[in-house]
Amino acid sequence: MTDYILREDAGAVATLTLNHPAKLNCLSEGMMQALQGALDSIAGDPSVRIVVLRGAGKAFCAGHDLAEMTQARQGADGGLAYFKALFVQCSGLMQSVRNLPQPVIAQVHGVAAAAGCQLVATCDMAVAEETCRFGVNGVNIGLFCSTPMVALTRNIHRKAAFEMLTTGELIPADKAQALGLVNRIAPAGRGGEVTAELAAHCAGKLGEALRIGKQAFYRQAEMGLEEAYAYAGEVMAENMMLKQTQKGIEAFLEKRQPEWDQD
Amino acid sequence: MTDYILREDAGAVATLTLNHPAKLNCLSEGMMQALQGALDSIAGDPSVRIVVLRGAGKAFCAGHDLAEMTQARQGADGGLAYFKALFVQCSGLMQSVRNLPQPVIAQVHGVAAAAGCQLVATCDMAVAEETCRFGVNGVNIGLFCSTPMVALTRNIHRKAAFEMLTTGELIPADKAQALGLVNRIAPAGRGGEVTAELAAHCAGKLGEALRIGKQAFYRQAEMGLEEAYAYAGEVMAENMMLKQTQKGIEAFLEKRQPEWDQD
Amino acid sequence: MTDYILREDAGAVATLTLNHPAKLNCLSEGMMQALQGALDSIAGDPSVRIVVLRGAGKAFCAGHDLAEMTQARQGADGGLAYFKALFVQCSGLMQSVRNLPQPVIAQVHGVAAAAGCQLVATCDMAVAEETCRFGVNGVNIGLFCSTPMVALTRNIHRKAAFEMLTTGELIPADKAQALGLVNRIAPAGRGGEVTAELAAHCAGKLGEALRIGKQAFYRQAEMGLEEAYAYAGEVMAENMMLKQTQKGIEAFLEKRQPEWDQD
Repeated sequence: MTDYILREDAGAVATLTLNHPAKLNCLSEGMMQALQGALDSIAGDPSVRIVVLRGAGKAFCAGHDLAEMTQARQGADGGLAYFKALFVQCSGLMQSVRNLPQPVIAQVHGVAAAAGCQLVATCDMAVAEETCRFGVNGVNIGLFCSTPMVALTRNIHRKAAFEMLTTGELIPADKAQALGLVNRIAPAGRGGEVTAELAAHCAGKLGEALRIGKQAFYRQAEMGLEEAYAYAGEVMAENMMLKQTQKGIEAFLEKRQPEWDQD
Repeated sequence: MTDYILREDAGAVATLTLNHPAKLNCLSEGMMQALQGALDSIAGDPSVRIVVLRGAGKAFCAGHDLAEMTQARQGADGGLAYFKALFVQCSGLMQSVRNLPQPVIAQVHGVAAAAGCQLVATCDMAVAEETCRFGVNGVNIGLFCSTPMVALTRNIHRKAAFEMLTTGELIPADKAQALGLVNRIAPAGRGGEVTAELAAHCAGKLGEALRIGKQAFYRQAEMGLEEAYAYAGEVMAENMMLKQTQKGIEAFLEKRQPEWDQD
Repeated sequence: MTDYILREDAGAVATLTLNHPAKLNCLSEGMMQALQGALDSIAGDPSVRIVVLRGAGKAFCAGHDLAEMTQARQGADGGLAYFKALFVQCSGLMQSVRNLPQPVIAQVHGVAAAAGCQLVATCDMAVAEETCRFGVNGVNIGLFCSTPMVALTRNIHRKAAFEMLTTGELIPADKAQALGLVNRIAPAGRGGEVTAELAAHCAGKLGEALRIGKQAFYRQAEMGLEEAYAYAGEVMAENMMLKQTQKGIEAFLEKRQPEWDQD
């Protein structure tokens, strides 16, 4: 049995590698289960402050496993129940990335297509090698990328998203960055270094503050302004009460770097 | 009587031309009625997979017909009931563009001003000639572009939209593209070619998938994340059940181009 | 006692200056009270059509007053009630900027950090000197910028906002402009001129139209499309009924500049 997901921890950074290069790390049932398990395990691990998600081999992730899906058509219902369950599983996985307490950085190389592009859009930040390409290209086979669209349209402007979804074209990394899908571009073959630098920088922050902030980030985004402020004000007051935050502010007032006690 | 709207079909692409060049294709009552009728007719026509909307003469569209509106002031209520009905008509027209099953591409040249700019913002994609200009300039005559704002703010960032609405300035095509209002720029006088290329590319896709996708695109945009995923997963499973989608996926797995049976 | 806020009126433009340069114009209780009072006073003043908000000394605004906040920790509850009240006060102030009938332009130089960056994001438009920097850097001291995030995420794309909040990095003016946080860049030391030009341009519009438009801008942004159009159509019809708007349209039809009677 393949280890679909490899986990490697270095300091407070956990790196998860999609590890099925022969199938371009596609999101088969097995891959999704393995990734879900890895995320569930990290969620309760306070020693992890930042997660990196990357792919082994030539590509980040090519989307769903169409061969596996095609086999399901042999069911009495033509596969309908299977497909519904599959998209529930996949959408749940994407929401687990977003609901994970720790920030997740996608390290993208090669291609991120369809649900692979959705995974990038779902991560909190993304680093892309300059040679890689992004697409929501299901339309090319008659399967509009409706679930990837949910994540994509919450990252970039409407007309650009519509164009990607309707033309099925792959766009290069620099365009993905200009649109808002990617934070930083790395030279070809050096995505690991650039991502590691960003991850280490963020892992030097107070883990509790990152967790508080990430949760509040997405919650307030779905509220009207007044409700968002009422909520965020409470969050901020609670953040102030943390012992480590008190130490951070004292250090700032004394013009020192904060030294935090954290795992 | 003028033919306010001309319709020309080529393959699966229907091109609608706003045809009142002497008045810069302004959205008079007659123009809006004609465009509404043309859209209603296309909505039920499965032979059309892509719609192009363009203007005859010097400009795409200069907005509302201020002369016609001014005549309405002679009513006992100073025109209030007329104005309300007019904006209901216009807002209904814009929503018909968005609710049309087929993707709509705006082909813009010259000027797209006020409700003309709203029409561009409302279309799913837009191609602009490099020489054309966009504005929501009603503020210059004391009439803030409140209804165009509804479409514009769903295309571009908040501060840029506020600036356009409050300064009344016209912006060039390249800025409109950078802001997210335009997908592609064409050389002067060649908007038709660039638009035709994009339209033909999209018209080569499976029409049913485009219709499913466009409807889902706007519906999920107004939902919270969890609801959006539940909805989009259902949409995607239904898309999988289409016979032509099955053929598309089989072709992909056999490394062939799909050959679809469609009108 | 310091005058925390200076007000200077020139024509229809009121300029408010955050005036506590020794503390980088931080949002102490006193500063927030003074700014709240100045806004409340302008809200009912029809002679003001545009507001400019700027900072005295080296910086626009460095955020909250951490020394003042630290003193509050000596309370029996460790400051919790104080912090909650403080964020209610600050969030109320930000909403007063947004709810002010007149458009507000931030004129930014030096640094806009944490709640100072929130203030820029909250203003309707922003002009920045090319040398200035923007950050939501509370994470550096263990206090995630949760309330600034409410404003920031309503200005720029999600991944860019997450990066700013999580890395705590300061970004230069040109990047802030590309992201959507800033409208116009001024040469170093000339932010006042560029802002004055923009303010004067907007102050030449009909004040009633600006007020109608600003209110509708934010209201419709929180509505679904159908509700937004129903609302904006009513707003537009009412705008048509203004005597000065009638004059503006008549002038347009007669190819003249409008001459409005306004304070």
